[in-house]
Amino acid sequence: MKFTLPRGTRDILYPEIILWQQIEDTARRIFSVYNYREVRTPIFEETELFERSMGESSDVVQKQMLNLASQRVDADGKPLLSGFSLRPEGTAAVVRSYIQNNLYKKERISKFFYIGPMFRGERPQKGRLRQFHQIGVEVIGANTASPYLDAEVIALSVGLLKSFGLKMFKLKINTLGSSSDKNKFSGILRSLLEPKISLLCDDCQQRFDRNVFRVLDCKNKGCREVVNSLDIDYGYLSEGSIRYYEEVKTILKDLGIEFEESMSLVRGLDYYTHIVFEIASDSLGSQDALGAGGRYNNLVYELGGPQVDAVGFALGIERILLAGSYEENTITSHIDCFIISMQSVGLRQAFILLNELRSNGICCDLGYIGGSIKSQMRMANKAGARFVIIFGEEEVRNNEITVKDMNDSSQERISLSKVLQYLKEKL
Amino acid sequence: MKFTLPRGTRDILYPEIILWQQIEDTARRIFSVYNYREVRTPIFEETELFERSMGESSDVVQKQMLNLASQRVDADGKPLLSGFSLRPEGTAAVVRSYIQNNLYKKERISKFFYIGPMFRGERPQKGRLRQFHQIGVEVIGANTASPYLDAEVIALSVGLLKSFGLKMFKLKINTLGSSSDKNKFSGILRSLLEPKISLLCDDCQQRFDRNVFRVLDCKNKGCREVVNSLDIDYGYLSEGSIRYYEEVKTILKDLGIEFEESMSLVRGLDYYTHIVFEIASDSLGSQDALGAGGRYNNLVYELGGPQVDAVGFALGIERILLAGSYEENTITSHIDCFIISMQSVGLRQAFILLNELRSNGICCDLGYIGGSIKSQMRMANKAGARFVIIFGEEEVRNNEITVKDMNDSSQERISLSKVLQYLKEKL
Repeated sequence: MKFTLPRGTRDILYPEIILWQQIEDTARRIFSVYNYREVRTPIFEETELFERSMGESSDVVQKQMLNLASQRVDADGKPLLSGFSLRPEGTAAVVRSYIQNNLYKKERISKFFYIGPMFRGERPQKGRLRQFHQIGVEVIGANTASPYLDAEVIALSVGLLKSFGLKMFKLKINTLGSSSDKNKFSGILRSLLEPKISLLCDDCQQRFDRNVFRVLDCKNKGCREVVNSLDIDYGYLSEGSIRYYEEVKTILKDLGIEFEESMSLVRGLDYYTHIVFEIASDSLGSQDALGAGGRYNNLVYELGGPQVDAVGFALGIERILLAGSYEENTITSHIDCFIISMQSVGLRQAFILLNELRSNGICCDLGYIGGSIKSQMRMANKAGARFVIIFGEEEVRNNEITVKDMNDSSQERISLSKVLQYLKEKL
Repeated sequence: MKFTLPRGTRDILYPEIILWQQIEDTARRIFSVYNYREVRTPIFEETELFERSMGESSDVVQKQMLNLASQRVDADGKPLLSGFSLRPEGTAAVVRSYIQNNLYKKERISKFFYIGPMFRGERPQKGRLRQFHQIGVEVIGANTASPYLDAEVIALSVGLLKSFGLKMFKLKINTLGSSSDKNKFSGILRSLLEPKISLLCDDCQQRFDRNVFRVLDCKNKGCREVVNSLDIDYGYLSEGSIRYYEEVKTILKDLGIEFEESMSLVRGLDYYTHIVFEIASDSLGSQDALGAGGRYNNLVYELGGPQVDAVGFALGIERILLAGSYEENTITSHIDCFIISMQSVGLRQAFILLNELRSNGICCDLGYIGGSIKSQMRMANKAGARFVIIFGEEEVRNNEITVKDMNDSSQERISLSKVLQYLKEKL
C-alpha cells in the first residue's frame, strides 16, 4: 500500500523549494523597505468569521469551505472543535486579530504582511489547488482612507511582482464606490439583467439574487456577451467616490504605474468598497489572476471592531511560479566542502573535522555511507562542493588530508590541523 | 459580536514575530551549514498515513487527530474530503513524500528539514497548543544506519538550541534496540508490570495492552513509582544493538556533547528503533521537552517504500520561546527614514520621494494620515526612524526638505533632488 498526496495539494521539494525561498526572501526584503510587519494567524478560525467577512452568498462560503471535525465528541455527542474551518483567505483573520488584540488603541496605522497557506475545497485544476499559498498585506487604521495609501498598496503589489522577475502582467483597477453607491449599483444591475436572465449560466442565475456583482466577472461566454451588451456607466457613484477614484489614478500616473480601467472588475467578496484592483498575467490561461485587492472600509466594523478604514491585497505564489516559468534545471546547490573518507580508517577523525568546520560556519558534508572514492566524488559533485577533502589511508597515517579544489582540479596535501585555516582563506 | 481565536491557537504579532523570524533565520543558516534541504508537505494528509506511522494505539491517533470535513457531499451523501487529518507531526508526511517522489532512486541519502505548524486536538495548557510549530529534520537512505549519522542529527539539534541562545538544557538518550529486541522488551515489560497493574493510572492500564512502552514515560506519580521499582536492564538487547548504542555514545563524547542515559526514555510512537533521544529544559515545568527524535529504520518500508534507514528529530518552537524567556520589550524596530508632510502642501511630492527612496532599497514610511508635526514625529519615533524628512510649507516652496538626524538631533535643509544621495551617504 502506498500513500499519496491529497488531491489538490503539492509537495515542494528541491529544486523547486529554492524558488519559493527566493520569492519569500525577496518579499520580506521589500516589506521591510515599505515598513510592513509580519503577522501570523492560525491555520483555522471560526467558520462564522469567514461567512461574515466574505459574505454568506460568496462562492467560497457556499461551496469551498473546508471544515474541521475532531473524532472525539463532547458530552452531548457533538464533535469537539466543530464550527471551525481552514482559512480560505487571509484578510478576515488579520482583521479578527487586529480587533482582538486592540491594535487600534496601540497604533494609528497598522501595516501587516503575511505569507502562508490558504485552503479551498474546490475541484482541482491548473492554477487552482485545495492548498495554495498567498503573500498579502493589510493596512488598517482610523481615518486612513487616503488615495495615497491605495496607491502605496498597488505600488507594493506591482513592485513585488517585478522583483520576482515577472514582466508581462497587467494592472486593472475599478471603483465600487461607497456602500450606498454599491447598493444603488446592485439595483441598477438587477434591473438591467432581469430581461436577459435566461441567457445567463446556472451559476449566474443564482448569483443574480445573492451576489449580482459576480455576474460581471463570470468567465462563461454567454454571460460575457450579456455583460458586454449592458449599458453601464458610473452614474450611480457619489461625487466623493468619483473624486477619490480620480485621485488614485492621478497618483498612480505620478509613479509611472500603468493601469487599465475595467468596469467589470468587481471581485467576488462582499467586503470591498471604493478601489478594487487585479493583476493578471499575459501568459496564464483562464486562471490568469496573479493577485488582487482593494479597499474595505466597513469590514473591521462589521466584524465587531471600531469604524476604521482598510486596504489590502493578496498575491498567489503558485500563480507567480506558473507565470514566471522559472527554469528549475538552472537551479544548483552549493556547499563549501565535502569530506571523503574510507570507512575502515579515518571516519572518526573525518567526523570530528566535519563538526569543527560546521561550527565555524563552513557549509559541508561527509560521505557517511562509504563506498569507493569515485562514488563519493559523485556525491561531492552532486552537492556542488567547492572543495573536496580526502582522508585516505596514507593521509590518516600522517595526520594529513588531501584537499582538491573543484574549480581547477588542483590538489595538495596539508596537515589536518591547518584545514580550517586553509578553507577560511580560500572561501 | 466579536470573534476570538480558536482555543489552543495563537496570533503571532510584533514584537514577538521578530523572535520567530530570528529563530527561523538562524535555523535556516545552520541547516545550510549542515547541507540539509527544506521540504514542504501539505497541512493535511490521509488520516490512515498517521495511523500507520504513529501506530493506531498511540495517544495522538487515539485522541488527538483533527479531521477534515467539507460541507459539500458527494453523490452518496458522504462529505467530500473525508479521511484526511491535519498533520500531528512531520515525519510521516516527509516519508510519504520521499516514497511518492521516488527519491530513493535519485539520491543515496536525503537530508530534509522542515519548519511549520502541526495540529493536535488536545486540551490546551501551558506549552501544549492545538496549533503548534516544529523545526525538524529527517535523514533517509538505503544502508545509512551509521552511528555517525545518529550523532550528526543529535549534534544538529543541540547546535540549533545553542544558536537560539538556550543554555540550560539536558540531552537524554536511550536505545530501544531492533524491532525484535523491542518485541522481547515489551514481553518482559508486560510480565513485570502485570502484578502491579492496579497501581497504574487509567491511561496506563489501557497502555498496558496497546502500547506498554508509554507506561515508562507517564508523568503520573503513582506510575513513576511503579516504573522506578521495576528491575529493568538491557538484557533483551542483541549484541549488534548494544554495539551500535556504544558507538553513538563514543562519538558524542568525541564531539564533547554531554548526555545522560535514561532507560525510561521510550518516546510514544511505534516507529522508533535503536537510538531515541530527548532534550529537556531545566526551566520548564512538567511539559519540559524542547524536542526529541530517534532512528526509525522500518517506517519507510511499512509505509510502502523500500527498506531504507532513517533518523530524525523535531524541536518545538513554542517550547523554545518559553524556555528562552526572551525579553520582548528589548525588541525594537528600525527604519531608515520617516517622511513628515503637511496634508495641504507637499504630500504629492513627499509621496514621489518616498517611492524613489524605496525603489533604492531605503526602508522608509510616510505620515499619510497627517496631523501636527509633533504627532507625526511621535510616529517617526515609534517606527525607530534614523532620519526624519520634513516637507514644510516653506520647504515645498523652495523645492527643499529639512532632514533631521535622530541620533544627534542635528538638522539641515537640502535640495529635494539631493535627498537620495544624501541618505545613501549617511546610511
